[in-house]
Amino acid sequence: MNRMFHVPLSPFCRKVRLVMAEKKIELELIEEKYWEQSPEFMRRNPAGKIPVVRMDGRTLSESTPICEYIEETHPTPSLMPNDPAARYEVRRLVAWFDDKFHNEVTSKLLYERVNKKVMGQGYPDSKNVKAGAQKIKYHLDYMTWLLDQRRWLAGDVMTLADFAAAAHLSCLDYISDVDWNRSANVKDWYAKIKSRPAFRGLLADQVSGFPPPAHYADLDF
Amino acid sequence: MNRMFHVPLSPFCRKVRLVMAEKKIELELIEEKYWEQSPEFMRRNPAGKIPVVRMDGRTLSESTPICEYIEETHPTPSLMPNDPAARYEVRRLVAWFDDKFHNEVTSKLLYERVNKKVMGQGYPDSKNVKAGAQKIKYHLDYMTWLLDQRRWLAGDVMTLADFAAAAHLSCLDYISDVDWNRSANVKDWYAKIKSRPAFRGLLADQVSGFPPPAHYADLDF
Repeated sequence: MNRMFHVPLSPFCRKVRLVMAEKKIELELIEEKYWEQSPEFMRRNPAGKIPVVRMDGRTLSESTPICEYIEETHPTPSLMPNDPAARYEVRRLVAWFDDKFHNEVTSKLLYERVNKKVMGQGYPDSKNVKAGAQKIKYHLDYMTWLLDQRRWLAGDVMTLADFAAAAHLSCLDYISDVDWNRSANVKDWYAKIKSRPAFRGLLADQVSGFPPPAHYADLDF
Repeated sequence: MNRMFHVPLSPFCRKVRLVMAEKKIELELIEEKYWEQSPEFMRRNPAGKIPVVRMDGRTLSESTPICEYIEETHPTPSLMPNDPAARYEVRRLVAWFDDKFHNEVTSKLLYERVNKKVMGQGYPDSKNVKAGAQKIKYHLDYMTWLLDQRRWLAGDVMTLADFAAAAHLSCLDYISDVDWNRSANVKDWYAKIKSRPAFRGLLADQVSGFPPPAHYADLDF
């Protein structure tokens, strides 16, 4: 059985979970307090980060390399187009969400509101929360612009880029930090991806001390 | 003609320059003060980062997606193995250097000593410099351990992972922040990669106000 060491509200773990669920690869989830950097965990991944996946007799880390590995070893259903320019666009957007969106939004909202408390690092810094709440508007507008021209974020088929974006937004939706009224395009896109069977595991997540709002698991949000 | 908007001491630009030079793809370099975020530059890359590459009639950003695109469109000489597990290992190590090494070392040494001055952001923070000087030892030891088992960082052939690592180390070597006496393995590996024709452009780089030390361009360092 494949295993993942994870936390429920990690966008990087969620991206890999979505990819594996979409490809119907079974996965056992094990919560890991990775910030405690236990010697056993550090042996599994010297980078000290989640997700860590045990699969095919290997211990894998780094969410994007893991997703590329899964795509290459389990190509059906495909989450990457065949054309190099289209593949580039998928990878650019995965990096956009995992780097820029993560730095400007996820780390400023989710990490301030949830991770700090869970890790015993004190209270949210309101300056960061305000900055994140401001920046997410820009990102939702950028997604709106992309979705004006395309059915999915990287083109006319669903790809890794959609799962990377949905992984971040679903974490933020768990703490009610996404204004779905800002863009009909983005709301329609999220409704489509949220209703996929691969999304069910994420919608059932519960973090102790942080109950999700009612709309979080509602497909008709 | 292909063009890159870059700065000489950016490890992300250097990685792409090395890949293109190794594949003998011509490239015109244009220095870009990306931190000024000029409207023209932001139009080229809304993420506001370098490198930005004009190639095949497209404007490309994000260094790893660019490298994957180049590898797919110019597969000879190959910088990626064929086996999915070996490809995973290349991608994991590229992420290791561009994420962990970058955060713990490059940003603490190079950005403190050079970028801050160039961008008019004041003096190096000695706490950061000290932390980076400490952490690079751990990374050199990790590379030593990898090179004990392999001829190149990700396996027995030279790959993108070697260029990612060499891009960071060459920037740090420009400011004399690499102790080549720490590990014969790492020094031998760097000597091999430094003597490749693809490296010549990097060794000729000059940053105004920061002359490189004599050993920087010396193949017999």
